[in-house]
Amino acid sequence: MSLKPKRTVAELKELRALTGDENGAQRVAWSDTWLKAREWFTSKLTGLPVEEHYDAAGSHWVTLPGESEKALLIGGHLDSVPNGGWLDGALNVLAALEILRRINKEFRGRPPVTIRLVDWADEEGARFGRSLLGSSAFAGTETIAADRVRVDLDGVRLEDALRRCGVEIDRFHEATAERANAGAYIELHIEQGPVLERMGLPLGVVLGTKGVERHAITFHGQEAHSGSTPMNARRDALAACAKLALEIRAIAGKHADAVCTMGSVKTFPGIVTAVVGRCEATLDQRDLDAGVLATMLREAREASERFAAEEGCSVEWSRIWQIEPIAFDARMVELCDEAVRETAGGSHRIPSGPLHDAAEVSRAGIPTVMMFVQSLGGISHNKVEDTREEHIELAVEAFDRLASKTMAFLA
Amino acid sequence: MSLKPKRTVAELKELRALTGDENGAQRVAWSDTWLKAREWFTSKLTGLPVEEHYDAAGSHWVTLPGESEKALLIGGHLDSVPNGGWLDGALNVLAALEILRRINKEFRGRPPVTIRLVDWADEEGARFGRSLLGSSAFAGTETIAADRVRVDLDGVRLEDALRRCGVEIDRFHEATAERANAGAYIELHIEQGPVLERMGLPLGVVLGTKGVERHAITFHGQEAHSGSTPMNARRDALAACAKLALEIRAIAGKHADAVCTMGSVKTFPGIVTAVVGRCEATLDQRDLDAGVLATMLREAREASERFAAEEGCSVEWSRIWQIEPIAFDARMVELCDEAVRETAGGSHRIPSGPLHDAAEVSRAGIPTVMMFVQSLGGISHNKVEDTREEHIELAVEAFDRLASKTMAFLA
Repeated sequence: MSLKPKRTVAELKELRALTGDENGAQRVAWSDTWLKAREWFTSKLTGLPVEEHYDAAGSHWVTLPGESEKALLIGGHLDSVPNGGWLDGALNVLAALEILRRINKEFRGRPPVTIRLVDWADEEGARFGRSLLGSSAFAGTETIAADRVRVDLDGVRLEDALRRCGVEIDRFHEATAERANAGAYIELHIEQGPVLERMGLPLGVVLGTKGVERHAITFHGQEAHSGSTPMNARRDALAACAKLALEIRAIAGKHADAVCTMGSVKTFPGIVTAVVGRCEATLDQRDLDAGVLATMLREAREASERFAAEEGCSVEWSRIWQIEPIAFDARMVELCDEAVRETAGGSHRIPSGPLHDAAEVSRAGIPTVMMFVQSLGGISHNKVEDTREEHIELAVEAFDRLASKTMAFLA
Repeated sequence: MSLKPKRTVAELKELRALTGDENGAQRVAWSDTWLKAREWFTSKLTGLPVEEHYDAAGSHWVTLPGESEKALLIGGHLDSVPNGGWLDGALNVLAALEILRRINKEFRGRPPVTIRLVDWADEEGARFGRSLLGSSAFAGTETIAADRVRVDLDGVRLEDALRRCGVEIDRFHEATAERANAGAYIELHIEQGPVLERMGLPLGVVLGTKGVERHAITFHGQEAHSGSTPMNARRDALAACAKLALEIRAIAGKHADAVCTMGSVKTFPGIVTAVVGRCEATLDQRDLDAGVLATMLREAREASERFAAEEGCSVEWSRIWQIEPIAFDARMVELCDEAVRETAGGSHRIPSGPLHDAAEVSRAGIPTVMMFVQSLGGISHNKVEDTREEHIELAVEAFDRLASKTMAFLA
């Protein structure tokens, strides 16, 4: 067999040395380091009979034409967050490259279906706060009219940063053309969570991406002197918020894979000598089931109102962001499960909490699935992000099996 | 009777017009507005047979010599916080002035004991963060060696701001000379809390100032992705802190006048998509009983360790500040209670949560008591700080009675 999973590990390390520093990966989309990573990746294509181009949103397409125009899409992203890990995004692209090499060799440059590798532009949204930029353009769900004027920390506009990399905002919508003949989409990713490690499994099948309800919640009480205000005369906005911070765990706990997170709390005036008059918090709720998500949101809202009343406070909610759950294709999930079991022995199906480009592709109606490989300690977006090398190799092997199964399915 | 409480109200309004603006009182110590307030106050002394001078720490002493050198001290402070109220501090000084006038008239310039009015320098510590500056110099508890290099928001040093007002840091300790012949100290103040208003009482007797334990508490958990980290795999530093924010109410609730306040909570990284990895809070605990204070501190510390353990976190404590409880003189408390009952019908004894110059005077071994007058809504350090005019007048009357009783006690 010509697949060389060890080569993927070696190439990941080569990329890390080229585009990382002592703080981790620095391949932030639209930066010089990101362009250097893409240039390096292009150099790896030498000798392969592929056509390559960048689409109107800056995603990089590498196509190995097959007997049929129907295409298997294999995706990933070379961009990282600042001070990121060596695997998030890059693993997908380099595993896909290895699979492209194997298929090219096995079918002597002419596989039964067309194989297309895509390196999506700006998955992370690290610089301008707009993630899934390239894949949303592909899916036709982009919001570029609103996004074009976003600025980075240095005041540079998204529009200008993209133009510097050859992407013209006004042609952005043309990226949907890449959907032609797409038959299926597969993506390999590190889990970025602790579930597989805790189960002792190297690989898992992703059922879809969880829906997200994200809200800002403000409790209004009464600022008061900490020394002269008796405990029973207080309207403590922090106390109401603290009750909610604890209650969301019970709300999420009723459902197997649901999560609720209070990630930020701010107190006003926020000084040691004053009872908190105003407390601002954020709540992030996720589940793969839209009904569960709606129930959790209702329960959190009701709880916040109850706690506010108990503490003589009032409470306001405002939505920051939401996205519906996106379930991957049932047949593709079965194929992925087979590939994982045949390679690793055991398998496990989990929803993904983080979003991925696969969610956008799935929204566009293309049969999609993702495979997860175990993350050590569940840590990502950090230089300590890691996965055992033998698990990376196993992942490339299982992902290659999934590619073959999907080709058979498309043929 | 020559006491004119309505004149005190009128003079308070005159001072407000002279030294306040649309945001409230602006008599911040060592500012031009403060100097203007003191100059205005000095003009009110015209015609009184008093000796006046500023001591080595900038406190203003106005002495009406009596048959005996033994002195009754009546104190207050003209300085305010920025955007402060019209009564905090100034009420004491102008009520004392009215009482000085009454005593001078009644005894034709020669009362049985010496009467000394003091306008303490920099009670609030608003500009340099060192409160009770003048009274601590008087008491010999000053920390000027450490304080002299403090800077304000504009980078001006305390030392230089004081020199501009004629106070030489190197002579600061000489302020203790004012303690000679001091027989008793009385101070009238707005309550700055809601207790008297809730009880329907205009006046109260202050038992002393509560001791304070002030700590910074940091919970260390594990930052984690809000989407990919199952609820049972989290080490949520906010959850541990939320438990403590609620538990301190039970800890304070065991004791009649005790208070515990979590005034500030900060979350890190503090973003909507991450479980809180580190949570920093402040805890302010107060009681008039040193044993109760020590118990509350121990209980809060133990609770924080229990909650940290429950959440897979660790916790660190570091002391920000502490001061022991200061109980006022028992005989003086009785005299004050008599004066309040005789004037207002009912009385109530409460500890003061906020600190006052009276605490420093009491520490110096001088028999001391304070009288409180009701605050509307318990609000102070704010332009909406207010007290009913009839209550101000009643307070001046009761405070005058206390002065007479104390003179009899000293004679």
